[in-house]
Amino acid sequence: MGKGGGEGTVVTPAAEFPALGPEELGSLRRIGDRWRVARPDRPGPAGELPVDPTLGQYRRRPAPSRFGRLAPIEMFQVGEPDELVATEPANLPGSRLGRGLARLRRGALGPPLSSAAVLYERMRKLVALPVLSSDLLSSVAYGPEAMLTVLVLAGSTTLGLSLPLAGVLVVLMITVGVSYRQTIPAYPHGAGSYIVAGDNLGAGAGLAAAAGLMVDYVLTVSVSVAAGVHAVTSALPGLTGLTVPLGVLMIAVLLAGNLRGVRTAGNLFVLPTYAFVVALLAVLGVGFLRAAGRGFAALPPPDVPVAEGLGLLLVLRAFSSGAVSMTGIEAVSNAVPAFRPPEWRNARTVLSWMVAMLVCLFAGIVVLIHLNGLVPRPGQTLLSQLARSSFPTGPWYALVQAATALILLLAANTAFNDFPRLLFFMARAGHAPRRFLHMGDRLEFGNGLVALSVTAALVFLAFGGHTEALIPLYAVGVFLAFTLSQAGMVVHWRRRRGAGWRRRLAVNALGATMSGLVLLTAAVAKFAEGAWVVLVAVPLLVLLFHRVQRHYRRLNQALALRPPGTPPASPGLPLPAEGQEVPQQIRHLVVVPVARLNRASLRALAYAASLGQPTLAVHLAPNEEEADRFRGQWEAWGDHLRLETIVSPYRAVIGPLARYLEALHASRADLVLTVIVPEVVLRHPWHRPLHSQVERRLRRALRELAGVVVTSVPVHLPG
Amino acid sequence: MGKGGGEGTVVTPAAEFPALGPEELGSLRRIGDRWRVARPDRPGPAGELPVDPTLGQYRRRPAPSRFGRLAPIEMFQVGEPDELVATEPANLPGSRLGRGLARLRRGALGPPLSSAAVLYERMRKLVALPVLSSDLLSSVAYGPEAMLTVLVLAGSTTLGLSLPLAGVLVVLMITVGVSYRQTIPAYPHGAGSYIVAGDNLGAGAGLAAAAGLMVDYVLTVSVSVAAGVHAVTSALPGLTGLTVPLGVLMIAVLLAGNLRGVRTAGNLFVLPTYAFVVALLAVLGVGFLRAAGRGFAALPPPDVPVAEGLGLLLVLRAFSSGAVSMTGIEAVSNAVPAFRPPEWRNARTVLSWMVAMLVCLFAGIVVLIHLNGLVPRPGQTLLSQLARSSFPTGPWYALVQAATALILLLAANTAFNDFPRLLFFMARAGHAPRRFLHMGDRLEFGNGLVALSVTAALVFLAFGGHTEALIPLYAVGVFLAFTLSQAGMVVHWRRRRGAGWRRRLAVNALGATMSGLVLLTAAVAKFAEGAWVVLVAVPLLVLLFHRVQRHYRRLNQALALRPPGTPPASPGLPLPAEGQEVPQQIRHLVVVPVARLNRASLRALAYAASLGQPTLAVHLAPNEEEADRFRGQWEAWGDHLRLETIVSPYRAVIGPLARYLEALHASRADLVLTVIVPEVVLRHPWHRPLHSQVERRLRRALRELAGVVVTSVPVHLPG
Repeated sequence: MGKGGGEGTVVTPAAEFPALGPEELGSLRRIGDRWRVARPDRPGPAGELPVDPTLGQYRRRPAPSRFGRLAPIEMFQVGEPDELVATEPANLPGSRLGRGLARLRRGALGPPLSSAAVLYERMRKLVALPVLSSDLLSSVAYGPEAMLTVLVLAGSTTLGLSLPLAGVLVVLMITVGVSYRQTIPAYPHGAGSYIVAGDNLGAGAGLAAAAGLMVDYVLTVSVSVAAGVHAVTSALPGLTGLTVPLGVLMIAVLLAGNLRGVRTAGNLFVLPTYAFVVALLAVLGVGFLRAAGRGFAALPPPDVPVAEGLGLLLVLRAFSSGAVSMTGIEAVSNAVPAFRPPEWRNARTVLSWMVAMLVCLFAGIVVLIHLNGLVPRPGQTLLSQLARSSFPTGPWYALVQAATALILLLAANTAFNDFPRLLFFMARAGHAPRRFLHMGDRLEFGNGLVALSVTAALVFLAFGGHTEALIPLYAVGVFLAFTLSQAGMVVHWRRRRGAGWRRRLAVNALGATMSGLVLLTAAVAKFAEGAWVVLVAVPLLVLLFHRVQRHYRRLNQALALRPPGTPPASPGLPLPAEGQEVPQQIRHLVVVPVARLNRASLRALAYAASLGQPTLAVHLAPNEEEADRFRGQWEAWGDHLRLETIVSPYRAVIGPLARYLEALHASRADLVLTVIVPEVVLRHPWHRPLHSQVERRLRRALRELAGVVVTSVPVHLPG
Repeated sequence: MGKGGGEGTVVTPAAEFPALGPEELGSLRRIGDRWRVARPDRPGPAGELPVDPTLGQYRRRPAPSRFGRLAPIEMFQVGEPDELVATEPANLPGSRLGRGLARLRRGALGPPLSSAAVLYERMRKLVALPVLSSDLLSSVAYGPEAMLTVLVLAGSTTLGLSLPLAGVLVVLMITVGVSYRQTIPAYPHGAGSYIVAGDNLGAGAGLAAAAGLMVDYVLTVSVSVAAGVHAVTSALPGLTGLTVPLGVLMIAVLLAGNLRGVRTAGNLFVLPTYAFVVALLAVLGVGFLRAAGRGFAALPPPDVPVAEGLGLLLVLRAFSSGAVSMTGIEAVSNAVPAFRPPEWRNARTVLSWMVAMLVCLFAGIVVLIHLNGLVPRPGQTLLSQLARSSFPTGPWYALVQAATALILLLAANTAFNDFPRLLFFMARAGHAPRRFLHMGDRLEFGNGLVALSVTAALVFLAFGGHTEALIPLYAVGVFLAFTLSQAGMVVHWRRRRGAGWRRRLAVNALGATMSGLVLLTAAVAKFAEGAWVVLVAVPLLVLLFHRVQRHYRRLNQALALRPPGTPPASPGLPLPAEGQEVPQQIRHLVVVPVARLNRASLRALAYAASLGQPTLAVHLAPNEEEADRFRGQWEAWGDHLRLETIVSPYRAVIGPLARYLEALHASRADLVLTVIVPEVVLRHPWHRPLHSQVERRLRRALRELAGVVVTSVPVHLPG
C-alpha cells in the first residue's frame, strides 16, 4: 500500500512497466558480470547483425512489402539511436479483416491518442464543478423520494417526519463535507478512500473501502440509469414498457462514449449540470413563491393506507435511504490532481461549493414536498410531481425532466470515470489483475470500462430496472468507504500531528462516527431488503483481492532478480531452476518429432540442423512394421540426423513423447531440450476440424516439463 | 477411390501414416543429396549426442525422476537398435489429475490394447450369424408394424392387402439377397456400398452411397433404440413417461460398451440373437397351431375409423414402410474379411442363412397378424400383441419382449460397429477428417463412435423417441446405398466379364432395379413425411465430403516432396517458400522481445544467446521516458546484446512488434527470424485471468508471418 500513497493518483501508461528497485539493479549487474560471450562467432553488443535493426536503409529507399502499399518507413520512424517510434499504421493488425475491423473501430471511437497526451488536461474550477458534482447533485433526484417511500408506509401522517430527518441529513452532509475538505490538502496527489484507508489503517481496510466503492460504482450506474429511465418514462408514460431495453441502451451508450476516451468529453458535463441546477432552483423558487402566497401553509397530503406501524426501524430505514443523497461527495477528493494549480486549494473550494449546492437543493426539495403535500406515487417521480406543481404544463416541465435524465446519465458516467481508475490503482498495488493497468489506444482503461458495464447491466437486468429495489444495496457500500476514509484520516492526524491536528482529528472523527452510524443503520435496517448482498459481497471481494495480491507477490518473488548464487528469498518456495542460467552454461539437445516425411517436417529438420546443435529426430510408430518402413524412408533421405523410433503400441502420441523427453531430461538435467515442431498454418478456421492439432496438444503437454523449450516452425498453406 | 478398392476393408492403425509413393521417395533422395553438414561441429548421423537416446543407461541403473516412483525404464523398453517400445505407463499423462482420470477411464473401458491385437479375431459362421444378423432380423420387430400402420389408415378392411405386399417384399428380399451373394466373392476384401459404388460408378456415387449409409446408421441407432424402448414400455406401461431418458441411456450404454472395444463383445451377440429367433419361432409356432385349430380362419380385425381413402400412394407408402424390414442385409458384405478362411465362401453361406431366416420370420409374422386380426394400437407393439395372443401371460411373454428389446439394442450396436469403419475408409481416401483414422487405446475408433452417438441422440431427442416418425427417413438412405452398390456390381460385371458374367449381371441388375424402385417409391411417397430431410441431407453430405477431400488434396500437394528446384505441380497454387530449404541455406536472426528484465526474460535472453546466432533484443515502451529508463537497466546489466527500443505511443504491443518483424523480414527475405518469448507457466488455470497472455497473443499474430519461427521458453512458477 505504501507505493500507492507515494505515487499518488497519477495515471500513467508506464505503470505497466514497474521500475527495478536498487537491489534488483544490483543483482542485474552481478548477473551481467557472469555473462560472457559464449562463442567466438557471436556478434558483440554493438556487433554485426545480418540486417539493420533500425530499418535505416528504408528511410532512403522505401520498398513495397507483402502488406501492400504500406512500406516499413511509414510504420516506423527513427528516434534516438537504437530507437524506433511506431506510427499509427503499425498498430493495425496484419490480416485484411483485422485491419478493416480496426479501422471501423477507429471510425467509431476516434483516432488513437499518444501516451504523451495523458496528463495534459487540467480543469478550471467552473469546469470541475459540473464534472465532479454531477454524481452528487443528481442524487437529490432519487434520495428524498427514497426516504419518503419508506416513511409513507406508516401512513401519510408520518410524512411530517421528513423535516427532522432532512435536518439530520443536512448536518451529516456538512460534517462529511468538512471532513473531506481536510483530507484534500493532506493527500494532494489524490485522496481516494482506497488510498487513504489503506495508507493509514492497513491494506485490509483499503481493500474493504475499495470493495465498498466498487459496489458503489456498479450501483451508481444501475441506480442512475434506472432513475434516468424513470425520469423519461414519467414524462412519456408510453415508454414504460421499454424500461429495461432503454436502460441497457443507456449503459451501452455510456460504454461507447467512454471507450472514446473521457478526456474529450469534459465539456459535455458543463451544460446539463448547470441546467439541472438552474431548473431545480426555478422549480423551488416558483414553488416557494406559491407557498408564500398561502402563508407557507402545508397542504395536507392525500390519505395513504397504512402498510406498516411507525417504529424505530422504519425511521432508520427512511434515514439511511435518504442518505443516498450524499453519494458522490467523495468525487472531488479522488480527482485533486486533475485541478489546475494550486490543486488542493481549488479542489477544496469546489468541494465547498458542491456541498453548499447539495444542502440547498436537498433541503429545498424536502421542504417543498412537505408544503405541497406530495406523496410518492408509482409511475411518477416526486421530482416530476414537484415540477408539475410548479410548472403544470409547457416547456419548463419538460426541461426539468430532460435535465434530470441528463444529469443522471452524467452521474452514471462519473462511475465510468472512477471505477477503472480505482482498478488501475488496485492493479498497480497488485490487488487487481494487471490488465487493468493497460491503457487502450484512446488512453482509456478499456478492460475496466467493460467490466463495469457488464456488471452494472447484469444488476440492472436482475432487478428489472427498478430504482427502489436497488437503493438498499447502495447506501452500505458508499458509507463503508466514507467511514474507512475518514477513520483513516483520524489515524493520519494522530501520526502526523502538525498545526491544529487536534481540531482536524476531531472533525474527521465526527465525520467517521456519523458515517459509521449511517453504515450501521443501513446495514441493520436494510439487511433483509438486500443490504445483506453487499455485506456478503464486500468480504468476498476483499478475500479475492488478497488472493490476487498473493499470486502476484509470489510471481514477483519467483521472477525477481537475485544475485547469482543466492538462495531463494523465501525458503518455503521451491524456485524454478530455470532462472539462474547464463549462456555459456546452457547445453542443447534439439529434438524433432517427425510423424511423416513431407515438406513441413523437412523444413523443421532443416531448421533444427541449421541451429548447429546436437539434433535427434524421433518418430512414433504404432507398430514395428511402420517403424521399419519409416526407417527405410529415413535412409532413402540420407540418414543425415540421428533417428530414434519409438513404437507406441497403444497408438498414443503425446503421452509417450512427453514421457520420453522427461526421461531424456532426467538422464541429463543440465540439458535444455528444444523440441521443434512444424505447425501447419491453415488459412481458414473452418479447416481446423480436419486437422488433429498435434502441434497444439504437444505444446500443452510439454509446457509442464522442466527444461523443455518448444519451437513452432510455421508452414503456410495456400488456399 | 482406387486406393480403397486395393487396400480393401482391412482396418489398421498404420493408415494414419500413409506410405510415400515412388516419386516422392525419389524426391526425398534428391533432397537428401543436397543436405550437407552445415557446420563442422554438428554430430553426424551416427554422431555423439550429449545423451543416450535409447535411454540405455537406465536399463542398468534406474533413477527416480520427477514423476515419482515411475522410472524411465518402466516406460520404455529397448527394441531393435535405435528403437524403443513405449510400455503402457508411458501413455499416462504427466499431471497427477490427468493420470488419475486416465486410470479411471481404464478401469471403466479396460486396459489398452496393443496394435498387434487388431487383426487376430476371425469369426466362426455360427458366431458371425448372430453378430451380423442382429440388425437385419431385428428389423422384423418394427417393419411389419410400420407397413400395417399405414394400411390401417384406410380402415380395417384394407389390412388384407398386407399379404400381397408381404409377398412382393419377400421376392425383393430374396432378389437383393442373391444380388449381395454375388458381390461377396467379387470383393473378398469387403464389399461395402461405399467401396463397390465408388470403384465402379465413380467417387461421386461412392460418396452418395456413403452419405446414404451414414444417414442409415444414425437412423438405425435412433429407430432401434426407440423400438427397443417401445418393447420395454409395452411390457411395463408404467415406464412410458421415461421413453426419452431411457433411450438416451441406451445410447450412452452402447457408446460406453463400444469405447471398450467391440472385439471382446462378439460373444455378447450370440445369445440374444438366437433367443430372439427362438422366441419368435415359438410365438409363430403356437400361433399357427391355434390358427390350425380353427382351420386357419382369419379372425376379423376390430373396426378402425377410416382416416384416408385407399389409393396407390397409400399402398406405396405401406410398401416402402414394410421395406425397412430389409435394413441390415448389407452387413455381411461389409464384413467379409472378419470371417475365417475361406472368407468369401463362409460369408456367402451366412448371408443365405440370414436371408432365409428373415423371410421366414417376416412372412410368418405378417400372416399370423392377419390370421389373428390384429391392428396397430398406440401403446403396444404388434409383436407384443402377437406374443400376448400366443402366450397370454407368464414368463414366455416377458421373454419375447426382453429378447426383442435386446436384439434391437444389438442392432443399434451394429451401427456402432459399421459407422466408424465407414468413416475410417472415407478418411483413408481423404473424404472425411483424418481424425477418424485414429484408433484409441482400445483399438476403437473413438471419434467415430462419439460422432454417431451424439448425432443419433440428437435425432432421437428431436423426434421425442417415436419410432414411427423416424421410419420415413429411414428407407431412403438404406435403399440408396443398396441401389448404388448393386448398380456398381452391374458395371463391375460388364468390365470384368468372366465365367457366367451375363447371368450375374442380370441378377445384380434385377436387384438394382428393384431397390431403385423402392428408393423411388420411398422418396416420392414419403417426401412430405420426412424423406425430404434425407433427400436434402445426402447431397449436402456429398458436397461436404468433396470439400474435405479438396482440402486434403491441396494440403498434400503443398506438402508433397518434390525434387529440389522443380516448379510447383499445379501452377495455380502459390507454393510456400518454406519447403525448399536445406540447413546450409538458412541464415538466422534471433529476436527476443523483452518487456521487463526479470528472471523470465533473462532466461529467454540466455537461451537466445546460447544458440550462437546473431541476436537482437527488442523492447516496446509506451513513451520516451520509459524507453530511456529501460535502456538504463540494459546498460546496468552489461549491454551484452544489441537492443532496439520501439516507442509505441499508442501502447499497442502485438501490432508494432509484428509489423517490425515483417519489416525486418522484408529487408532480408532469406533470414529466418526466430522470436524467443518467455512463457510463464501457471500452476492453476484460475490464475489465467491475472495474466495478459501476451505470449499467446503474440504467437497468434506471428504465426501468420512468413519466415518467423516462434520459440516459447517456459518458466515454471511455484504455487
